[in-house]
Amino acid sequence: MEVKLDAHGGNIYKYKRNNRCGGNGEFLDYSANINPLGVPESLKQMIISRLDEIVYYPDPDCMELKENISKYLGVDTNRIFTANGAAEVIFILFDVLRPRKVLIPAPTFSEYGKAAEIAGVGVIYFERKEANGFNLDMEEFYGSAVEEGADAVLLCNPNNPTSTLITRDDMEGFIDKCNKAGIDVIVDEAFIELTEGVNNSIVDLVDSYDKLFIIRAFTKYFAMPGLRLGYGVGCTGIIEKMEEKKVPWSVNTFACHAGKLLHTESGYIKKTAAWLKEEKEWLYEQLREIDIFKVFYPKTNFMLVKILVEGLEAGELRNRLLEKGILIRHAGNFKFLDNRFFRVAVKDRDSNIKFMKAIKEVAKEAAGWEK
Amino acid sequence: MEVKLDAHGGNIYKYKRNNRCGGNGEFLDYSANINPLGVPESLKQMIISRLDEIVYYPDPDCMELKENISKYLGVDTNRIFTANGAAEVIFILFDVLRPRKVLIPAPTFSEYGKAAEIAGVGVIYFERKEANGFNLDMEEFYGSAVEEGADAVLLCNPNNPTSTLITRDDMEGFIDKCNKAGIDVIVDEAFIELTEGVNNSIVDLVDSYDKLFIIRAFTKYFAMPGLRLGYGVGCTGIIEKMEEKKVPWSVNTFACHAGKLLHTESGYIKKTAAWLKEEKEWLYEQLREIDIFKVFYPKTNFMLVKILVEGLEAGELRNRLLEKGILIRHAGNFKFLDNRFFRVAVKDRDSNIKFMKAIKEVAKEAAGWEK
Repeated sequence: MEVKLDAHGGNIYKYKRNNRCGGNGEFLDYSANINPLGVPESLKQMIISRLDEIVYYPDPDCMELKENISKYLGVDTNRIFTANGAAEVIFILFDVLRPRKVLIPAPTFSEYGKAAEIAGVGVIYFERKEANGFNLDMEEFYGSAVEEGADAVLLCNPNNPTSTLITRDDMEGFIDKCNKAGIDVIVDEAFIELTEGVNNSIVDLVDSYDKLFIIRAFTKYFAMPGLRLGYGVGCTGIIEKMEEKKVPWSVNTFACHAGKLLHTESGYIKKTAAWLKEEKEWLYEQLREIDIFKVFYPKTNFMLVKILVEGLEAGELRNRLLEKGILIRHAGNFKFLDNRFFRVAVKDRDSNIKFMKAIKEVAKEAAGWEK
Repeated sequence: MEVKLDAHGGNIYKYKRNNRCGGNGEFLDYSANINPLGVPESLKQMIISRLDEIVYYPDPDCMELKENISKYLGVDTNRIFTANGAAEVIFILFDVLRPRKVLIPAPTFSEYGKAAEIAGVGVIYFERKEANGFNLDMEEFYGSAVEEGADAVLLCNPNNPTSTLITRDDMEGFIDKCNKAGIDVIVDEAFIELTEGVNNSIVDLVDSYDKLFIIRAFTKYFAMPGLRLGYGVGCTGIIEKMEEKKVPWSVNTFACHAGKLLHTESGYIKKTAAWLKEEKEWLYEQLREIDIFKVFYPKTNFMLVKILVEGLEAGELRNRLLEKGILIRHAGNFKFLDNRFFRVAVKDRDSNIKFMKAIKEVAKEAAGWEK
C-alpha cells in the first residue's frame, strides 16, 4: 500500500483524489506547518470587501504592500521584493545572483536545490549531524564554505524539517565573516515569527551587509498558503535586478492588500504566541512518551521524529494514520534522512489529542508498543 | 505635464497615488481591455464559499482546473500548463523552448520581447504595416522568418494593440509550413474569445502539430486580471518541461477553482457576445466621427487610434482625459508606433457615452476640432 513520496507536505488534493482518507473525506493535515488559528477574520473580510476589484490588474509595484512590510520590519521599501509566495522569491533570487556554487545545510526544504539547479548554480550540501540534534556548527559550516569555494550559502532558519534554530548572535558573526570573504548569505525566515521568545530575525542586518538576503512569507504565520504571498529583503542593487526579472502582476489583488495584517492583527499575533508556547511543549512531551520514537526538540511549530524500532518505517506509519484521517509528512526524501523519519506539525489542542490517540494506536498495532 | 509612459495599460494605482484623477478619485479605465460585464457573480460566490480553504496550499497539480479547461477546449489535460497569469506562461515557455531567434510581428504586447530577452533568446521584429491596416501578410511573414533564420515565431491573435485578426484558414496554412520547416509557432490567444462570429481559435491544431503552442487566459474574458490565471496548450513534451521549471503552487486557491466558469457561465458568455457585437461597432462609428482621428477597425474589444492633426499628441490627450477621470493607453511606446497613437477599450454603453463626451471636448479644446 505504499504511495510515491510527496515532494512537499500539504498536498491534500492528491489524497482526496485517491480517496486515501478517513471516513468523512476530510483530513487532519499534520503534513503542512500552518498556524492552526486559521485564516485571520480580517483577511476574509478584506477579500469580501474587495471582490469587485478583481476586475482591475493588481498594482504591479505592490506599493501599499511594500509600505506595510517596510513599517513592520523597519527597512526601506526599495529593499523589499514581493512575490507569488516565497518559492518565487527563491527562484528569481538564484536567477539574479547566479553564484557559481551554493552551500546548503541539509536536511532542508527541497526547493532551494531545485531553484539553484534550474538557474544553473552548482549545489553542495553540508550535512547537519543527527548526533548534534541536527544543529549547525557555524564555525564548521563557514570552514566548509571556504574550503568548497562556495560563493553563496543558503540557510533556512528555523530549519525545515529539523525545527532547529540558529541564534541571532551566531548568525551575526557568521554573516560578518561571509561578507568579508565575499560569500552571499541567503536566509529563509519563513518560520521565524513562529519561534519563541525574543525576535530571532536578522532582517535588520540588511542595512549593514550588502551580501545578505532574507526570504520571508505570510504563508505560515497568517495561515494563508492558498493566497500566495512571499517577500525578500536585501540590498537595493539586488532588488532592482529581481524586479527586472519578475513576471508582471505576479502578486494577486488580495495578496497585495494582505500587508495590513501585520499591523491590525495584534490579537491574532498574541494568541499565536500563547498557542505556540503551550502546544509545542505539550505535543513534544506527549510524543516523547512513545518510546519507539526519538523526537527532536522543536524550536518552531513542527517537529522531526525518528522511528527507533525495526519493522516499522515512516511510509507504513503514514499509511496507517491516513486510514484514521490524519496526514503526516514522510521525511524520507529529505537529503541525509531516510525512511525512519517523519515530520508533524503542531496544531490546536483538540487536534493534537486526536493525533496522539491515533499515533499511539498505530504504534501499538504496527510495532507492538505498549505504555 | 508629461508623465513617463506606462509599460502596460490598467495601472490605475500609479494614477491614484499621484492623484491624477477626476473629482471622486475613481477612473473610467479605458487603458485595460477587460470585459465590462465585470467579475461573474458565480466567481465572487465561489471565493466567498472557499475563504477557509486559504489555510491549505493550492493543488500543485491544478487537476480540477486542468480538467475544466480540457473539457472546454477538447484537448487532453497533459497538453495543458496552468500558471499565475498568461505572463508567467510566456516567461516559462521561452525559458524551456530557448529558440536561437524569435520573429515577432509588431506593434504588439511588449512582454513577449522582454520574456525572450530574459531567456537569452534573440528577438527580431517584423513590422505590421500601417498602410495595410496593421494586418499581417502571412506569406511575407513566413518568408521573413525563413530569411532571418528564425526558429520560432510568436503571434498575438487578435493582436494587441492593433485589434487585427488572422483568420483560421490563414493561420492553419502558416502553421503547416512552419512545422515542416522546423519553426516553432507560438500564438497568444488572450483575446480570442472576445472576437466575433465563428470560433477563431486554432487550439485544436495542437493535436496535429508538435511545434505549436497556444497561450490563453481567463483575464480578459471573465474580467478577472486581479486573480491571475493563464494557461498554455501544447505538445506533452513541452508541457512536461514547463512543469519542471515552474515555481510550485504558482496558481492560487481561488484561481484553481475558476475553471468551472467555462461551463457554468453560459448567460455571461451570451451577454458578452451581444455586448461585443453591439458596442464595438458603436464606439468605432462614434470615434470615427472625430475626423482628426484615424480609427483602425477593431476585431476585438479595443481599438487603435491615430491622431491626424499636428500639435496634439497622445500624451497630452491622455493627460487631458485624465483630468476628466478617464484613463486611456498612450501607445507611443509600442514598437513601430509613435506619440500619435493611443488605444481605447470598448466598455459598456453608459461608460462609452461618457468617454465620447470627454474625448470630443478634448478634441475641441486641444485641437480646435468642430463637428
